[in-house]
Amino acid sequence: MNRPEDGERRASRRGFLTGAAGLAAVAGVGVRAEAAAPNPQSTEPFWGLHQGGIVTPAQSHSYFAAFDLVETRREDVATLLRAWTAAAARMASGQTAQPLDSALKPAVASHAGDAQTKGGDAYATPDSSTMAADTGEALGLSPARLTLTFGFGAGLFSKDGKDRYGLASRRPAALVDLPKFVGDQLVDGHSGGDLSVQACADDPQVAFHALRQLARLADGVAQIRWVQSGFMPNFNGKETPRNLMGFRDGTNNPRIGDPQAMAKVVWVGEEGPDWMRGGSYLVARRIRIALEHWDRMQVAFQEQTVGRHKYSGAPIGKTKEFDALDLDTTDKDGNPVIAQNAHVRLAAAASNDGAQILRRPYSYNDGVDFTAERWPPWRQGQEYDAGLFFICYQRDPRTGFIKIFERMAKFDMMNQFVTHVGGGLFACPGGAAEGEFIGQRLFETV
Amino acid sequence: MNRPEDGERRASRRGFLTGAAGLAAVAGVGVRAEAAAPNPQSTEPFWGLHQGGIVTPAQSHSYFAAFDLVETRREDVATLLRAWTAAAARMASGQTAQPLDSALKPAVASHAGDAQTKGGDAYATPDSSTMAADTGEALGLSPARLTLTFGFGAGLFSKDGKDRYGLASRRPAALVDLPKFVGDQLVDGHSGGDLSVQACADDPQVAFHALRQLARLADGVAQIRWVQSGFMPNFNGKETPRNLMGFRDGTNNPRIGDPQAMAKVVWVGEEGPDWMRGGSYLVARRIRIALEHWDRMQVAFQEQTVGRHKYSGAPIGKTKEFDALDLDTTDKDGNPVIAQNAHVRLAAAASNDGAQILRRPYSYNDGVDFTAERWPPWRQGQEYDAGLFFICYQRDPRTGFIKIFERMAKFDMMNQFVTHVGGGLFACPGGAAEGEFIGQRLFETV
Repeated sequence: MNRPEDGERRASRRGFLTGAAGLAAVAGVGVRAEAAAPNPQSTEPFWGLHQGGIVTPAQSHSYFAAFDLVETRREDVATLLRAWTAAAARMASGQTAQPLDSALKPAVASHAGDAQTKGGDAYATPDSSTMAADTGEALGLSPARLTLTFGFGAGLFSKDGKDRYGLASRRPAALVDLPKFVGDQLVDGHSGGDLSVQACADDPQVAFHALRQLARLADGVAQIRWVQSGFMPNFNGKETPRNLMGFRDGTNNPRIGDPQAMAKVVWVGEEGPDWMRGGSYLVARRIRIALEHWDRMQVAFQEQTVGRHKYSGAPIGKTKEFDALDLDTTDKDGNPVIAQNAHVRLAAAASNDGAQILRRPYSYNDGVDFTAERWPPWRQGQEYDAGLFFICYQRDPRTGFIKIFERMAKFDMMNQFVTHVGGGLFACPGGAAEGEFIGQRLFETV
Repeated sequence: MNRPEDGERRASRRGFLTGAAGLAAVAGVGVRAEAAAPNPQSTEPFWGLHQGGIVTPAQSHSYFAAFDLVETRREDVATLLRAWTAAAARMASGQTAQPLDSALKPAVASHAGDAQTKGGDAYATPDSSTMAADTGEALGLSPARLTLTFGFGAGLFSKDGKDRYGLASRRPAALVDLPKFVGDQLVDGHSGGDLSVQACADDPQVAFHALRQLARLADGVAQIRWVQSGFMPNFNGKETPRNLMGFRDGTNNPRIGDPQAMAKVVWVGEEGPDWMRGGSYLVARRIRIALEHWDRMQVAFQEQTVGRHKYSGAPIGKTKEFDALDLDTTDKDGNPVIAQNAHVRLAAAASNDGAQILRRPYSYNDGVDFTAERWPPWRQGQEYDAGLFFICYQRDPRTGFIKIFERMAKFDMMNQFVTHVGGGLFACPGGAAEGEFIGQRLFETV
């Protein structure tokens, strides 16, 4: 709205425009060379032993996409991952996906040509050599702590019984087919996929921009199957954020700042194939919350359901959020203070033979849908399509999410208010060193 | 994720919990009395000559809802507006919608009783007297510059030929039925409504929280008809933000810091009914952008379409964003440098007998939908349901949006890429002084 004072300067600083900085990028000079030192507050490292976006302090916005592979050649998939890795590293440092003064270079350039040939004169399909390398809407924005986290679904290894890429024998035992849990109402339009990418950033435009560039690079090799936006409140990085149920969510999470805890809970170790070492398994669940229904409950009932006090976050009967969750306490009548079917009891490690996961959820808010209740008082009208886009990481989903959720799906008192309507399981490989690409060890060791 | 050090202190500071601060709220002590001085960076005034959210510097997130009135008594509508005003003022200052240690008080309490009676024992409809006054997910968050902007649709004055509230004669001449523009593809599920509320805040959770509380207060009087989320990039408040087309959007907007310009373009003056003085007319358009199609165009073609250079934002042929838009310049062959059908030419005041509007748009990103093209190369797959939630304000839509858009709808080169799929026109009354409610003069002068 207001007139920029320094718009040109800022864009130039980051090397988006032509000129010396842009040429440096074309010449392949390292990303740091073409931009002034980034604000350490606003970038997250891309290269490393682990992918970003897993133990990274949660950014405020997320854009998740699952892709279906439509190409049959393994080398094309590897080429896509190479192009995605390069673009992701550039974008994480605040640059465009490819140098802006070049044309779009899709991961597998032949496909743009194919489309052109098929289309002929009847349909003026633009030649990819004339498309902009980047769609531009993140120009001038901070990198906003962008992370891009890549995962492989079961479909990369085999699909409809076919070993499309000669990778079937490499499928990790931990990359199981998720069982159908009690109450699951998963819809195809929000489930599965051969590849996953999650963009997280402190700016929704930066997150969506990143995914959009990756989707363009994938043209002809992979296409979007489903997407999900998410957000977190600006919770100042210190407090445990509240989700849309109004309760703090994540109090008992293992601490991301504790490398030993992360090694125990999150990171695949020697038990996994080499390409998964330093990686993790991502379980995503699109959990729709019946907010209108929840909002009609008394706070005391909500607290019994969760097993915590709403405002303080303390376990029932305690006063502080981080007071120990004591599952054995009983009231004067001998009944457990935290109900047998309370959410926190069923989720607790103590109730699951020590099983733990790292939860990294976002709330989602996808508008409203019409509904009509078929019982008195015959409410009808729009209801929120909102809830929790639950994401968790673990070194093995069989002893992580599946172990924990099988009982929760049956007994959790919260199930009256939540429905799992989508999601997936993805193997997120270890991180890449500069010059490598994400998943390289999987493709090279076959 | 991390353990809060000061969670309890912060919540208490803002008077959400019981105790002295909460009791002060119950006792009706002024809102400032129960909280420490708010950060002036993070609150926008609620009371005043004008409603907030119109000439307020754009916040990063928006949640817009249109409501249908379902109640037939005028006094109930007035009561709803009184309750909405009180809750909005509280929330804008960072408080809960109603004191947290009280039960929910819907605007028209009798309705909760009605539902209870109808439901009886067969359906355990909770009594509103036991519902929490606030759903809680904004506890501990900053007010985040929350504004709530209320508007009246034509349906408040008459609907299906009925003068439901005895207000038909008060309908302002400027509150016309929007014409059907060339290319309009409006769908009911995103259009119209008797009342509108837009929540804008620098935190998506704060914006949605506010709307959700207002919807709860409206129980039995009004229900949600459609909603739309929106976002802006973190553009530092100085630069003109880019929309999802990658172009700067708003360069030629009248300046919100210029009261004379606002008086001329935005605020209803003596020509309007008294309750609209200091108010403005809101036109909303949900504009879906065919991003995949746009992204295949050369940048030079995109620039011809818009009439500006993509990266600098300068008019075609100029170098700086705020260089004058010179529509008369021709090239050496005598052709206009800015094409006859370029977006900026058709939108310019000079092309519309001086007509101007204040644009206050947000981008939206509602996931993906399946599509299949019926021509070569027969593309199919998911396409983005994303674009621009265009909102503009003006003192009279007949000489504002309608005047400008009638020609744009026919001739704008950008129409190849954008489709208007929803929206509405709402009369936003002047602001309220403390103790009044929004729209009071309309209801009291009948």
